[in-house]
Amino acid sequence: MDYASESLKRHYDWKGKIEVVCRCPLEDKDDLSLAYTPGVAQPCLEIQKDVNKSYELTRRSNLVAVVTDGTAVLGLGDIGPEAGMPVMEGKCALFKAFGDVDAVPICVRSKEVDDIVKTVSLIAGSFGGINLEDISAPRCFEIEEKLKETCDIPIFHDDQHGTAVVTLAALLNALKLTGKKMEEIKVVTSGAGAAGIAIIKLLIAMGLKNVILCDRKGAIYEGREGLNKEKEEMAKITNRNHEAGTLEEVLKGADVFIGVSAPGCVTQDMVRSMNENPILFPMANPTPEIMPDLAKEAGAAVVGTGRSDFPNQINNVLAFPGIFRGALDVRASEINDEMKIAAAKAIASFVTDDLLSADYIIPSALDKNVATAVAEAVAKVAKETGVARI
Amino acid sequence: MDYASESLKRHYDWKGKIEVVCRCPLEDKDDLSLAYTPGVAQPCLEIQKDVNKSYELTRRSNLVAVVTDGTAVLGLGDIGPEAGMPVMEGKCALFKAFGDVDAVPICVRSKEVDDIVKTVSLIAGSFGGINLEDISAPRCFEIEEKLKETCDIPIFHDDQHGTAVVTLAALLNALKLTGKKMEEIKVVTSGAGAAGIAIIKLLIAMGLKNVILCDRKGAIYEGREGLNKEKEEMAKITNRNHEAGTLEEVLKGADVFIGVSAPGCVTQDMVRSMNENPILFPMANPTPEIMPDLAKEAGAAVVGTGRSDFPNQINNVLAFPGIFRGALDVRASEINDEMKIAAAKAIASFVTDDLLSADYIIPSALDKNVATAVAEAVAKVAKETGVARI
Repeated sequence: MDYASESLKRHYDWKGKIEVVCRCPLEDKDDLSLAYTPGVAQPCLEIQKDVNKSYELTRRSNLVAVVTDGTAVLGLGDIGPEAGMPVMEGKCALFKAFGDVDAVPICVRSKEVDDIVKTVSLIAGSFGGINLEDISAPRCFEIEEKLKETCDIPIFHDDQHGTAVVTLAALLNALKLTGKKMEEIKVVTSGAGAAGIAIIKLLIAMGLKNVILCDRKGAIYEGREGLNKEKEEMAKITNRNHEAGTLEEVLKGADVFIGVSAPGCVTQDMVRSMNENPILFPMANPTPEIMPDLAKEAGAAVVGTGRSDFPNQINNVLAFPGIFRGALDVRASEINDEMKIAAAKAIASFVTDDLLSADYIIPSALDKNVATAVAEAVAKVAKETGVARI
Repeated sequence: MDYASESLKRHYDWKGKIEVVCRCPLEDKDDLSLAYTPGVAQPCLEIQKDVNKSYELTRRSNLVAVVTDGTAVLGLGDIGPEAGMPVMEGKCALFKAFGDVDAVPICVRSKEVDDIVKTVSLIAGSFGGINLEDISAPRCFEIEEKLKETCDIPIFHDDQHGTAVVTLAALLNALKLTGKKMEEIKVVTSGAGAAGIAIIKLLIAMGLKNVILCDRKGAIYEGREGLNKEKEEMAKITNRNHEAGTLEEVLKGADVFIGVSAPGCVTQDMVRSMNENPILFPMANPTPEIMPDLAKEAGAAVVGTGRSDFPNQINNVLAFPGIFRGALDVRASEINDEMKIAAAKAIASFVTDDLLSADYIIPSALDKNVATAVAEAVAKVAKETGVARI
């Protein structure tokens, strides 16, 4: 199928991928008096007395805003707020279909960090959570950080944390399959954007010691000239052996390659230079850093990509619906690392040992039961870590 | 029925009066590839080329934000943004049930005019229209004015214009019934808030010449001391005979009383002092300026209130769903006076001459066919006045 032209046709037919419907009857006089005036005054007064009642008396407890400024939409880049909306609507549809979460797409007509932060902060009382989406780095880091300070609801930048959670899930199973341990492996990543940085942070939280982050110029290390603030911070927590060199050079002897960068930057020779039974997650979309068949031919033990037409699709839809479902269920004030790790483990454990294989390290993106398991795990850990509010 | 306690109970049961649902299938791989990546890139690119395509390729063409700051919620006053949300959700449910309009409730956590204007402006690209709700006067006037300047979608403060449209509709039929003419009557209104001012402006646009606006201190006239900006402006376009005095004094000889003020400020003696066959719309909620039975006993020819337990309920739900339906259908850039008047006439004409009586000057708020007629009339006039964009 020609997805581009067929999708365009479908979008014209759909006239929106989501819609708003009523949950209350509005047929007779009593209906109106209960859902609206005069009856509605009473729930209003209850919330005035205790603002937490807004979670019980309105849809807030199940409602997430999917917010973008349209600056990093898919691989298309800065296409503008309105042009990002088909993606945001699609995300909202996935939230509902996979997590039974009501989600509303909001695009912000500004690229200024302070504008976006203030706008989202001021409307945060309308929602139970905020999913940031397709906001370019490094602004996305600052926006997320500032929103976490100003809002009392979970702020989750899916391009960072959703990707990190699913990557960790895939890695956990790939390590199990190859008999390697997180604490002992060498990981090399390519791509210092939102996803690349979040993946490394989550892997470190999970016990990874030896990881090198590469950008277009090669390995990032402490003292390399011209690093921006985010890369400087990453240089402090990665590459403890201070390896300099190109991606090709530092990949030698590595156990794992994770790519969220550009097509074709990994060759078969580079795969051959890695440690035995190497694991490769070339996730550049739509064209990976190396095609799975080439990687396998060169000796890769496990390969995962972002694509649905190869085995092991590392797809965020395995994570975000369940993560928000779980966070909303316990009215979590935030989504912390422990909750993300719990989500990753829940996704990984969906592949039982008897089925685990090089071509099946991660459940199908279409399996809607994953979100339920993720939600339960996330809610449990939210309670254990003290961020649950019910 | 005890609406207060029953409504509270229902709200706990409903857990939100609206929800978001999918309009596209999300079951198999192709579904995901068409609604989301990679297919969704194509509609994004179409919108990037022409931002108007956002009306065809997303839900924007049917989507309205219902925005409040929680400062003038029902008769409860400034109860806070979250506490206003049950009303906003109810409004959204009515939008859907009566106008098939998708509406999303948004509360803004600020009372600053500039904050609210900037927030709404920045998210306006997500919606096809903005319904302002329960924002206190005089801030509501400035907010609406500034938003009209900064946004390219209809901005409609329902407390002003919805009320004005339905009041005009009721008055048109009451005048028909009593054989009076808009150009010849004397109207006295009580209440200089958002609704009171908007009603007068629309009646003047409809041809009314002689109207006196009263606040708590009595008639507003040019030169009265201590008038705020809005009242000063009203003094210039009302009360051309420069009548001073209390409501009681200026009501003498009037043909019409319209109240959007406080319970009980009109007595039977005051009704008796009016011109013959007086029309009274005491719309203070829940207790009118004078109870309908008392007004009738004192000689009122027609009485309309805001209440559903008396004849002639002047209820905004007769106006806003159809007005937005019509505006969205032709992608109107604004909702102008001509469109409001067309809406009022459509509502009025729903009461056919053979049925028109003192107890039936306005259709039932439950009649969902009204919105269709209003939408058609509004869309037609939007085209005629050049604000339709399709």
